[in-house]
Formats: sequence, C-alpha cells, structure tokens
Amino acid sequence: MSIIALLTDFGLNDNFVGVMKGVIYHINPEVKIVDLSHQIESHNIHEAAFLLKSSYPYFPEGTVFLIVVDPGVGSERKSVIVETEKYLFVAPDNGVLSFLMERDIKRIIQITNEEYFLKPVSRTFHGRDIFAPVAAHLSKGEKVEKFGPGTRKIEKLTFPEPQVKNNRLVGEVIYVDRFGNLITNINQDTFLRFIKGKKFQIVIGKAKISKISSSYQEGKEGLPVGIFGSFDNLEILLYRDDASRLLNLHKSSKIYVEKSTTRS
Amino acid sequence: MSIIALLTDFGLNDNFVGVMKGVIYHINPEVKIVDLSHQIESHNIHEAAFLLKSSYPYFPEGTVFLIVVDPGVGSERKSVIVETEKYLFVAPDNGVLSFLMERDIKRIIQITNEEYFLKPVSRTFHGRDIFAPVAAHLSKGEKVEKFGPGTRKIEKLTFPEPQVKNNRLVGEVIYVDRFGNLITNINQDTFLRFIKGKKFQIVIGKAKISKISSSYQEGKEGLPVGIFGSFDNLEILLYRDDASRLLNLHKSSKIYVEKSTTRS
Amino acid sequence: MSIIALLTDFGLNDNFVGVMKGVIYHINPEVKIVDLSHQIESHNIHEAAFLLKSSYPYFPEGTVFLIVVDPGVGSERKSVIVETEKYLFVAPDNGVLSFLMERDIKRIIQITNEEYFLKPVSRTFHGRDIFAPVAAHLSKGEKVEKFGPGTRKIEKLTFPEPQVKNNRLVGEVIYVDRFGNLITNINQDTFLRFIKGKKFQIVIGKAKISKISSSYQEGKEGLPVGIFGSFDNLEILLYRDDASRLLNLHKSSKIYVEKSTTRS
Repeated sequence: MSIIALLTDFGLNDNFVGVMKGVIYHINPEVKIVDLSHQIESHNIHEAAFLLKSSYPYFPEGTVFLIVVDPGVGSERKSVIVETEKYLFVAPDNGVLSFLMERDIKRIIQITNEEYFLKPVSRTFHGRDIFAPVAAHLSKGEKVEKFGPGTRKIEKLTFPEPQVKNNRLVGEVIYVDRFGNLITNINQDTFLRFIKGKKFQIVIGKAKISKISSSYQEGKEGLPVGIFGSFDNLEILLYRDDASRLLNLHKSSKIYVEKSTTRS
Repeated sequence: MSIIALLTDFGLNDNFVGVMKGVIYHINPEVKIVDLSHQIESHNIHEAAFLLKSSYPYFPEGTVFLIVVDPGVGSERKSVIVETEKYLFVAPDNGVLSFLMERDIKRIIQITNEEYFLKPVSRTFHGRDIFAPVAAHLSKGEKVEKFGPGTRKIEKLTFPEPQVKNNRLVGEVIYVDRFGNLITNINQDTFLRFIKGKKFQIVIGKAKISKISSSYQEGKEGLPVGIFGSFDNLEILLYRDDASRLLNLHKSSKIYVEKSTTRS
Repeated sequence: MSIIALLTDFGLNDNFVGVMKGVIYHINPEVKIVDLSHQIESHNIHEAAFLLKSSYPYFPEGTVFLIVVDPGVGSERKSVIVETEKYLFVAPDNGVLSFLMERDIKRIIQITNEEYFLKPVSRTFHGRDIFAPVAAHLSKGEKVEKFGPGTRKIEKLTFPEPQVKNNRLVGEVIYVDRFGNLITNINQDTFLRFIKGKKFQIVIGKAKISKISSSYQEGKEGLPVGIFGSFDNLEILLYRDDASRLLNLHKSSKIYVEKSTTRS
C-alpha cells in the first residue's frame, strides 16, 4: 500500500491535478494519492521547497513525493529522482528539493528513460507526461536506477537567513498562512543562541513583543503574540485575527530581535 | 475498510491538511480519507457545526469524523471523542458537536492519553499532533476507552432560532453557499406549523415571495424563489444567479414570514 | 479496484462534494474517488464539457465519470448514463457530454429507476440523491440497463468553431487557466491546414506573434508566445506571467491568424 504525495502550483480550478491522478491510477491502481497542496504561488519554487520541508517527515516510509512547480518546463532543466533513507522525491531539478539534507540522500537519478513517459511528451505539461508516470512506476516498486543515470548534485536555492547586524538579529517573514499568521525564518535554536537568556524585544512593523508565548490565547487582549509554531519557526500572530492584514505585514517584511544587557 | 472524514478551517493553500493526512496514513495505511470541507471560515465553530450536521448522516456506519476548527488550541479547552450508535467524532470540545442528539450519544471520552499523541505536542497544531493520530488509531479499531476517562457533557453552542414576534415568524440567514443561495434557519416543520395552511408572504430585504417553489426553474423570470433545499431549510435564491450579491443579503440577514388571515 | 472521477461546479467551501463522497462510499466502500475539478464556473456547462474532454482519456479503463454541473436540477431535464468502449459517464443530459464521439458511444440509458435513488429525492441536490448513488452502483458492477430504458441521443451544445473570414482564420479564447494562459479554440490541425506552410502572423488584442514556440522559455524576453499546449490547442501566454491580466484578454477574446503569400 504505497502513497504518492502531490505538491504543485496547479491550483484546483483547472483539470491538471485530476489528469495527473488519472495517469497515476492508470499505472498503479493500488496507490493512495495525498494532496499536500496545489496552491503554491505560481512558479514559486522557494515556497514549494519550504512547504515540502515542513511536510515530508510526517509521512510513512516509502512515500513518493511528486513535486511539480516547474516554471522551466520544456527548457533544458533536468528532472530528478532523489532517494533518501525513507522516501523518494520526483521533481524538476530547479531547487525545489533544496531542503533535503546531504547526509540523508542515498542516490540521485536524472530522469531520462523515455520508456516511462507518456507519448507524445508535451512541451508544457511534464507533470502529466513525465513526472506522474515516473512517480506511479516508482510507487509500484520499479527500481530507481531504471529511470536514468546517476548524478551527483541537485540544484540548491538560497533562502534568506537571519543575520546579526548592529547587535540585532534580523530576520524576515517567509510565509503567511491562511489565518494571516506571519511565519519568520528565525527558528527556535537561532533565537535562543542569540538572546542567551537575556531580556529581549521583538520588533516587526509597528508591533513590539517582549516575550515568547506558549499559546494563541495569550493574545486575548488583542496584542500581537510571538510563538514558536508548528513550523518550528518564530510566528507573529493576532489571536483570532489576521496579523498580516491588520499589521500590514507580508512576505519579506523584516523582523528584529533586540536584546537587553540584563538577564531576563 | 474504514473512513476518516475531515472538516477543518485550514484552507487548501497551506500544508496543514496534507500533513494531517500523512500522520493518519502513517498510523493506518488502509484507511480512506474524505474531505468534507477545509474552507470553514477561520475559527467559525457555528459554521462547522452546521455543515457537520448536514453531512454526517450520509456517511457509512463506522466513519470517524475529525473536526479541527479550534481557535482555542493550546488553551485549557478539552478534546473529546464522542461515540454515537453509528459514528465516532473527534474534536476540540468547543461546541462544534452541538448538533449531535443526546439520545444518539453512547459515550463521551475526554482525550488525555498522551501515548497516542505525536511528540513533542506543539502549541499551535493539535490537528497534527493530537487529533489526527487519535482519529487514525480509532479507525484501526482501538477502543475508545483507551484514550481517556469518560465524561458526561460536551459544550453546546446556541444557534439563532426562528421566533414568532407580532404575528410574524422571524428567522435569519445562517449560511450562504457557493451559488449565493441564502440558507435560513427556518426548517420545513417550523414553517408549516406557523402558516397552518394559510396564505403567506416571505419578506427578505426588498424581496417578497408568496409561495414555496418546487424547483429552481420557477425562478426563470428572474424573481426570487423560496424553496426547501438540500439542507431541509428554507432557501432564498435567484435562478442561475447569485442571490446574496444581487439582493445584498448575507449571513444574519433577517427573514420574515407573514401570514394572511385567509386560507391559501 | 474501480474509480469514480468527479467533475462539478460545487466549489470546495460547502459540503456538497464531501456529502456525495459519503453517499458513494456508503454504497461502494472499495471505490477510489478522484476530483477532476469542483471549480467549474457556476452553471457553466460549456466549461465542464471542455475540461471533461481533455481529461477522461487519461483515466484507466472502467472509470466512472460523474459530472454534476446541473443548472436544470429539479426541472424536466433528463439524466443519463453513457457507456463508451472504455468508460461510463453519469450526468444530467444538458450537453455536458457533448464531446463524446458518436462512434465511441455504445449505449445511452435514461436514468429512471428510483430503486437506486436516495429517498426522499430533494429538489435541489440530485448530485447527492441520484447521481452519486447511480455512479456508486455502476462502480460496483451493476449493469447499465438496470437504471432505465435505452435512448438514442444526448443533448449536444454548440461550441464556437474557428472560421475563415477575409482570408484570416478567426478563433477565440475558450479557457483561461490558473496561470493566465489563454487557450483558444484553434487546434494544431486546423492551424496547419490554414497556413499551409506559409509565413503567418497571429493577432490577439494588441499582441502580434509570428511563430509557434516549442517551450515557454522562448518568451523570456517578455513577449507573448504562441504554443500548442497540453490541451492540443493554440495557447497564448507570457513567460512566468499572467497573459490574461497583462494583455487584458479573456474568455471570448478573438484571435486572428493572418497568412502571408510567401512561403515561410
């Protein structure tokens, strides 16, 4: 009982996702298909990489992840299968797998074996003609080496990293979820290593926050709350309200952590 | 072959729903997962309760309903399993199960047994860390009493009920569907008991309606139509048009049924 | 292991789709359900017919397609099962199956046998009360002739066809996908037969295009690109941008192919 998990920027209005599922079931009628998201912003490889990173560890061993966020479809960009200890990833080699750890990667295959493709291969929909059939065959247990030659590296994107400048930790909002919560690129580790047990102040837009909360409810009075959320990163939010809209903050908005000289 | 039906306010842009499914399949690879809706208005427990009520009776016996509309996540609100003659419901105890009938409820369990949780339990995503794993174990046949102690009551919300005032039946719009149809809180029973076979006039916004239609087509001339729809409640709609937009009526808009003194 | 593929205009906010799935699993717990799309524009039968046409050939033999775009629900419109060599289609007889080829159709059944309906049949939700149970029984292998008498014809819609006028091939945009790509009604065959190897110019809004591209990347300089896309029709697009928005072109916008008198 294998699983294919889909992550695309195809949206749900068109039939792109449905057609890919048709192709997959045609090849492997027994597989289960899970939608991770199809609402990645069009062509936004960074967003896809981020959501994939925070999703895949929750899936059972053997899951095949099929990622089609592919602005370079039809160009010279390569397509790859990446095998880790537990999972298989099928994707265009455009950086969408940037968060996979070197140490976890067992093998990288460049997908070239046209035997597994739907013919004729269109110029614009490799999700249907290449990626879906390859993922389906993998989910049936086809060996990864059958799909093409091994290769050494995959594309890596750079992501904005928090930095220390003028004694402040400077990060930014990298994702806004459907509730309007602002997810920053500052994870718990980086935060704790910076403040070293001292008092601190978080400044983002016009908001100032001087503690880390342990639940949304601490924002009941209407003040912005900072919390280490399910993405393991510092989130800024308003209790039962849309922080992005009300604080006028968005992806790329800067966040500053200032530390006092006194112990907290 | 068991089924878990999901109802959340997580939307489909983020990976919240996909991750919950990963967690579920991790524990029970054989289960089927059905999406009831993930587009409940953020934190709107009333809406979730209403949609659940009009959905669950259509599912096969043994279905586990997993409802995560949970503005109180991380607070002191409890989590419960409710067992009825036919179904199991897993949810935060915040009123989202208000429509379950006392007489149908066999048992209520407060979820406390951390053995079934994903560790560490986050402060912000109990859907992933508590509710999904509990539902998955239930779907595998784990006994409900394993998850915690029995309890007597669940939270009940109050919903606006139609009332008779000055010889008029006064109700309100409680839901607007994707077609712009206005679903009111007046069900067929209440309506018939009020008009008692007399002539009547329905007044909502600027619209006046003097009969109950038996199909949308009766609105072909462009006039508003009143019909007892699939929710079993009085719906006001425009044929092939968006009544909410064109009549400028919304959730909470009042509706009045006036009865004539003559027989219809 | 049978499959039911769903195509509706129900959207994903309400519980309509979820309830239909409940009904289906109630009858056939073993079936797989695939969402083709639920975001067909409300009541837009032409759009549903077009998306169905470009989807169904990718599904495995035996798939049951369940199409509920049904503005005439509750009226005198008929409901049908159409059996082709490979597939079964269940739908209101309103033209949504217009693209099925006469030569592929083996049998048409008018759905009348109320034994298979959910009772009482509502006036407004035949998707739940008629179409879902019929599709579920079909997916279990129930014989098509059980559902009602045979009939000879199904409704056919007319679709805008490209025409030659004043020595120009005149087509129009029939679909805009989520990326803003403009899909026209000019397919590759019609195009090639018109230009007969001559030089040509494509005119759409203010854009002029003088070649057919073989990948999106050819639009890197920001100019509009014409390509035969995954729908096999001429698509006009902007590389990594929204052609519909930026060129101010929409469904029904005209497209002209002008041919030079010299060979290309």
